[in-house]
Amino acid sequence: MSRWFHDSEPASLVSIDDRAFQYGDGLFETIAIRNGEPRLWEYHVDRLAMGCERLSIAVPDIRSLRQQLDDAVGQSDENPAYCAVKIVISSGVSARGYARKRPTDAKSYIGVFATLPVAVEHYRGGVETRVCSTRLALFSVIAGLKTLNRLEQVIARSETVAQSTFEGLTLDADERLICGTMSNVFIVSNQSIITPSLHRCGVEGVMRRHAIETLRENGTAVEIRDVDVSELYCSDEVFLTNSQFGVLPVRRCGERVWRLHPVTRQVMAKMADNGIAECAV
Amino acid sequence: MSRWFHDSEPASLVSIDDRAFQYGDGLFETIAIRNGEPRLWEYHVDRLAMGCERLSIAVPDIRSLRQQLDDAVGQSDENPAYCAVKIVISSGVSARGYARKRPTDAKSYIGVFATLPVAVEHYRGGVETRVCSTRLALFSVIAGLKTLNRLEQVIARSETVAQSTFEGLTLDADERLICGTMSNVFIVSNQSIITPSLHRCGVEGVMRRHAIETLRENGTAVEIRDVDVSELYCSDEVFLTNSQFGVLPVRRCGERVWRLHPVTRQVMAKMADNGIAECAV
Repeated sequence: MSRWFHDSEPASLVSIDDRAFQYGDGLFETIAIRNGEPRLWEYHVDRLAMGCERLSIAVPDIRSLRQQLDDAVGQSDENPAYCAVKIVISSGVSARGYARKRPTDAKSYIGVFATLPVAVEHYRGGVETRVCSTRLALFSVIAGLKTLNRLEQVIARSETVAQSTFEGLTLDADERLICGTMSNVFIVSNQSIITPSLHRCGVEGVMRRHAIETLRENGTAVEIRDVDVSELYCSDEVFLTNSQFGVLPVRRCGERVWRLHPVTRQVMAKMADNGIAECAV
Repeated sequence: MSRWFHDSEPASLVSIDDRAFQYGDGLFETIAIRNGEPRLWEYHVDRLAMGCERLSIAVPDIRSLRQQLDDAVGQSDENPAYCAVKIVISSGVSARGYARKRPTDAKSYIGVFATLPVAVEHYRGGVETRVCSTRLALFSVIAGLKTLNRLEQVIARSETVAQSTFEGLTLDADERLICGTMSNVFIVSNQSIITPSLHRCGVEGVMRRHAIETLRENGTAVEIRDVDVSELYCSDEVFLTNSQFGVLPVRRCGERVWRLHPVTRQVMAKMADNGIAECAV
């Protein structure tokens, strides 16, 4: 059975003239299905709508998109209560050339995937990371968005695969900490919780937003600002966020090791209370 | 009849799991077929091989690729003596996630397209351009390469379509002139010929290389260096290069108009002598 759907029908192939194939002209979201519901759906929809607006792609009808998502999960072979859904929005099919036809030609594709839960030991003891040598370009017009132009992440990720590291942290070309290849990053320094500003590059993850909002609603300040890589190494704790795994402490980055994560544990407890069940370990 | 081919067979569809569709994970070349031959073939092959090496994609067998190109042109409906061929190299099909399987999974797709010659008036009197407000990100790990991550060009191009301008010139985030959305740019200043350095962003076009080498072989110096946008407006002449049209004088950029192009005419004469027939006008 197909894992991809278009207009609620199986779709394992796309037109070679699709602009996603030719130019990476589109966006995507990877959504955790938990207890049969797309978790943080409104945040995914917000980011998708913002991305469509910035790329001048017509925003899909959200009610229809949600129906297609439910149909895809129902028709797939995966566990409908616990899986991952990837929504790809392409700007559509066009003739050769960078110029698009009309924004209304956009197409949605929905893929359904099994997800393996991250091992409990990782939630308890933290994960191993390293700083990638791949640097993110500065002042990108697509900063913050989850577009289909992902070569930087592909190249950075290839560094971590070779090292069997859980995640690679990426810096920008000015050596500021930005995010992981598939996650956002927070540091804890003198009881302050800080996450890098993403206005020059990087992706604004939905779990990052949920963590910031959960903490602030609980009266905990979160600073969003530039973070030099030296602050990463000098920090008291580091943790990662991602739509699928929620929050994970970082145990190591290169030679730097963090053995205790008291503030991260508090963050995880608050996130567990606010719908992110994985954090209750 | 299909305009796209894979392994010398018609191929109008690709797998939705193709990494070119999911991440823009690949490269392309757009080659002018003139007198039945792929013009500047060796330069296209050089750039493709450099791109594959930098992206860790297996370099395709060039002899086989050339055979597939000839087969595609022969099987297409287009004029086999005068058309455009687009070669897309994808890193291949993989499971979800940024990590690739093996570099040897790369796939080649070849598209054949009609090309309309640019009007003779444009070669004689020059084309209209403008500076796009879209800025290119700095210090890109894929600077110089013609990858499938082309959102910056798509966004910049959309500005020029709205204005019915022939080409949009793009600056980097530090206001340096870099290139056009589909061309490279040269300026003439006090008899010096200058083209922007492309080590931070931009695409190193094959016709740019051919122009630089042709001029240098003729004893004419070409400076490759950073060019502030102010130098564009203060220049005596501006011209564009592109694999399909060769060399075109620029008549206008925004409010700035250049009516005479004596140095550009000399460049075009040398290019016409060196295989670029369009320049003989």
